[in-house]
Amino acid sequence: MRTHFCGLVDETLIGQTVTLAGWTDVARNQGGVCFIDLRDHEGIVQVTVELDNAQVFAIAASLGYEDVLQVEGVVRARHAVNDRLRTGKVEVIASAITVLNKAAPLPFHAHENPGEETRLKYRYLDLRRPQMQRMQRTRIRLVQALRRYLDARGFQDIETPILTKATPEGARDFLVPARMHPGEFYALPQSPQLFKQILMVAGFDRYYQIARCFRDEALRADRQLEFTQLDMEFAFVGERDVQDFVEQMIRAIFAEVIDVELAAPFPRMSWAEAMRRYGSDKPDLRIDLELVDVAELVKDCGFAVFTAAAHDAEGRVAALRIPGGASLSRKQIDEYAAHAAKYGSKGLAYIKLSEAGEVASPIAKFFAQERLAALIAHVGAGNGDIVFFGAGGYNTVCDFMGAVRLKAGKDFGLVSDGWRPLWVTDFPMFEWDEQAQRFVALHHPFTAPAVDDIAQLRAHARTAVSRGYDMVLNGNEIGGGSIRIHRPDMQSAVFELLGIGQQEARAKFGFLLDALNYGAPPHGGIAFGIDRIAALMAGTDSIRDVIPFPKTTGAQDLMTDAPSPIPDEQLAELHVQVRGGEK
Amino acid sequence: MRTHFCGLVDETLIGQTVTLAGWTDVARNQGGVCFIDLRDHEGIVQVTVELDNAQVFAIAASLGYEDVLQVEGVVRARHAVNDRLRTGKVEVIASAITVLNKAAPLPFHAHENPGEETRLKYRYLDLRRPQMQRMQRTRIRLVQALRRYLDARGFQDIETPILTKATPEGARDFLVPARMHPGEFYALPQSPQLFKQILMVAGFDRYYQIARCFRDEALRADRQLEFTQLDMEFAFVGERDVQDFVEQMIRAIFAEVIDVELAAPFPRMSWAEAMRRYGSDKPDLRIDLELVDVAELVKDCGFAVFTAAAHDAEGRVAALRIPGGASLSRKQIDEYAAHAAKYGSKGLAYIKLSEAGEVASPIAKFFAQERLAALIAHVGAGNGDIVFFGAGGYNTVCDFMGAVRLKAGKDFGLVSDGWRPLWVTDFPMFEWDEQAQRFVALHHPFTAPAVDDIAQLRAHARTAVSRGYDMVLNGNEIGGGSIRIHRPDMQSAVFELLGIGQQEARAKFGFLLDALNYGAPPHGGIAFGIDRIAALMAGTDSIRDVIPFPKTTGAQDLMTDAPSPIPDEQLAELHVQVRGGEK
Repeated sequence: MRTHFCGLVDETLIGQTVTLAGWTDVARNQGGVCFIDLRDHEGIVQVTVELDNAQVFAIAASLGYEDVLQVEGVVRARHAVNDRLRTGKVEVIASAITVLNKAAPLPFHAHENPGEETRLKYRYLDLRRPQMQRMQRTRIRLVQALRRYLDARGFQDIETPILTKATPEGARDFLVPARMHPGEFYALPQSPQLFKQILMVAGFDRYYQIARCFRDEALRADRQLEFTQLDMEFAFVGERDVQDFVEQMIRAIFAEVIDVELAAPFPRMSWAEAMRRYGSDKPDLRIDLELVDVAELVKDCGFAVFTAAAHDAEGRVAALRIPGGASLSRKQIDEYAAHAAKYGSKGLAYIKLSEAGEVASPIAKFFAQERLAALIAHVGAGNGDIVFFGAGGYNTVCDFMGAVRLKAGKDFGLVSDGWRPLWVTDFPMFEWDEQAQRFVALHHPFTAPAVDDIAQLRAHARTAVSRGYDMVLNGNEIGGGSIRIHRPDMQSAVFELLGIGQQEARAKFGFLLDALNYGAPPHGGIAFGIDRIAALMAGTDSIRDVIPFPKTTGAQDLMTDAPSPIPDEQLAELHVQVRGGEK
Repeated sequence: MRTHFCGLVDETLIGQTVTLAGWTDVARNQGGVCFIDLRDHEGIVQVTVELDNAQVFAIAASLGYEDVLQVEGVVRARHAVNDRLRTGKVEVIASAITVLNKAAPLPFHAHENPGEETRLKYRYLDLRRPQMQRMQRTRIRLVQALRRYLDARGFQDIETPILTKATPEGARDFLVPARMHPGEFYALPQSPQLFKQILMVAGFDRYYQIARCFRDEALRADRQLEFTQLDMEFAFVGERDVQDFVEQMIRAIFAEVIDVELAAPFPRMSWAEAMRRYGSDKPDLRIDLELVDVAELVKDCGFAVFTAAAHDAEGRVAALRIPGGASLSRKQIDEYAAHAAKYGSKGLAYIKLSEAGEVASPIAKFFAQERLAALIAHVGAGNGDIVFFGAGGYNTVCDFMGAVRLKAGKDFGLVSDGWRPLWVTDFPMFEWDEQAQRFVALHHPFTAPAVDDIAQLRAHARTAVSRGYDMVLNGNEIGGGSIRIHRPDMQSAVFELLGIGQQEARAKFGFLLDALNYGAPPHGGIAFGIDRIAALMAGTDSIRDVIPFPKTTGAQDLMTDAPSPIPDEQLAELHVQVRGGEK
């Protein structure tokens, strides 16, 4: 239907007859000449129709936005050169135009942004817009580059099932009624974790997959019900083998896809250090602000919130200095407090130092003059700064002061340009769940502990460190992985510590325990969030911009109108019914 | 953990110290020397431990099958060269052995085939077997080669959703209860059909995806609940553009992956011709047998089954000559009749010609001598042959006589070696469903008819031909596609002919009709069955051999034990319950 792409017609074709096909980007009638901007995925070319070609002119004059055309014509040099277009030196003098499909008046035009609901409902129009085409292509090139990198290095791209077994650990499963097994269900995989471990036991040595994963969780701005990860696993490795390999891969891919050189090597930081300095296990190093521990300086002040936390072995009192923060109004400070409250803060104390050096602070009264001065000096605050204080349980203080740090970084323009990757390592093995009165796995129950000795792990479970690691980039956890447990006795011991009894462990993970028992190599791996990395590369905050057909935060596909009700007869075949619905 | 792979240790390394890691394929103690065949994914190398190295010898002497080892040693030339192994000229004299993981006694050994149930339950052991590794790698290389081919030609690899909308046309959907939308369900896609059409409307021009698809249908030997297809779509094309492109692709991929040259060009055949000559829309051309129409010769015979079909405009009387078939016993002939009955036959008449030329046939009595001779001459039967006859409705006769043809081909060793691809084209647009008293789409409701004129399509719907096409290889439909409808008025007309009312069409496919209305280019595409192509390439009859974790014909994953019952509390969160189960 065409001999050339619109966007690639250039001066090398002058004098030739070409056939093009594409969309009417704009058509305008200018003093007896009709100009059509004809667009395809490669770009736009100007088609010119002169009045003396009456039949073709009549067609051209009646065109509307987005009509689909086939155009035949001769390429000619253009008088008014447009340097912004590859095709800007030429025009196509149309000898024939066929309207392949008329377009009805559009709900919005390519150069508008009509709001996300409308964009998602008419996703095919949204995706036609040049910036959306660019962002989708960034994602496509990312995945292509990753595959090429891994294929060239002996990794095997292996598919794992989508209809699999429910594993009630972790996030909520999506379930699928099994028609052939009344009352039973498949589950969609939260990740291919167990299958990739099984592949290592099966001798595949190096595995990867661009894998669709599913989590039925409340959607936040950066989450989708289904998401895509680069899933990888290596046999016969330690953590540095995995980390070094994928660090080099990520560097190569950033260079290839968006021409960015990432630091070599990535800085490394323990989980404990990241929490202490940044209040986060995925610190955004572009923001040059750090938390400062002040328990020593406040432990005898009269403010009970501070003194209680300062004397609690599991408490923390942390300060964050924001340069220039004295400009915050009372209302703005309240907004910071409200923001901190979302992350568990019960109150956000502060000391403001005016440009003139005057102290304004609701907690100043609890400190003698020189104690206050010492505190201010300790956090390095100067005139014009504000210092926020958080006190309470260690992890809670980290969480909300980390959130305050991020907000301040954005509000005060303290986020530097560029790319700041790092490794976070030495995660705790377990978290203590107060409510359930048991340990939960910080990563997942298959992560190996740093110690090889089961008795030692049992004796020091609360402080045990795992062999997990995260790759962080500009405040995003873009990859997470670990060395896995490969010994069945250690796996059983970890299940036990997590309160998973022997019987339950067999029922849920019997095949894994068997597999570990029949010659499992030491192994480890990592998974990268493709949606997030693509969004970072494309320069957008929303992963929905780099997912071709995303769902809303309300878990709906506005274009196809999913989910939708299903006739009861169809449910009956699947042996289920809607609760409270008719039988 | 290793410096080299076991399977790659060769004479270039003689004298060097290497560290290897792998599985104990065999360990044997032979006159004071211990030999270990150490295996990894690259192959096997012989590790030798001499008695004078007492500590290492003790470890080696205690090894069992599949123990996982790390071995350090020096590579040495071997006395008894084993030419069958790449490593056969060397051995590794072990200076240290570390047992990384002991293996328990195995349920079966690598060189056994314990039956499919056991294989699937212990899939990790099954996949370790060299022939399974080979078959999986054939699949991996197939997918890799396809991606590389398409990436190099401007195709965009684009993901479409797995959680999507139920479309009650076609096969049965898998459903997923939507927690955030009580009483509503997502469906798993039967194919990305509508999304890929939408991508064409969105201007992506060339799309592909290695896509997981789901059909909740009874499993036959060659079907899985979830399967993988290479899904492709092209904008601004006619059928020959698509066919020529993918034909060249398939040829290139067969050459690259299994070094096979397929015919160039593929032969082409209309659906009508394929049915007439082979009784199948996916004829296996390796079998040099054809159906022969004999209605003219039997229309006046006394056998009512023949005469009725011969006088019915929609009937058929077809014969199939099987050379050498006179050797079939009465019991074997009954087996053919039973086989035909599975495909709708009500009886299978035959004429047997003994080596001496004697006729044995239950229908001979209906024919005068010279009529019988004429019939035998018409089908070209000679001494020692058998001729089967089928009579009835046209398509039914095709189906069961086609099945008889395939069985005879196999039974009589008439399936030639090699690869016989072809295109089948000009499929009927509709089939008349007697039960529902309406048309159903032979392909799918988005396939374009050969005629552009709606009135003409309506007037001749029963005989209308579509722009669909299948690629067939050795009797397998390996790819199927079509030019799609791109005009909204034609799409509405086809929905109407299929008995899908305007309201229903809007509810189910409103977004498609809208999309066609807002500037849809002419487009078409195809989808290839990756599992089947991989099985053909790997030389196995079972697609389960080329799927890493397949389900049984009973729709179960025997390794993880999916599907499984789910606690009612968990179902309550999803607003569903098991029918007849407790509330």
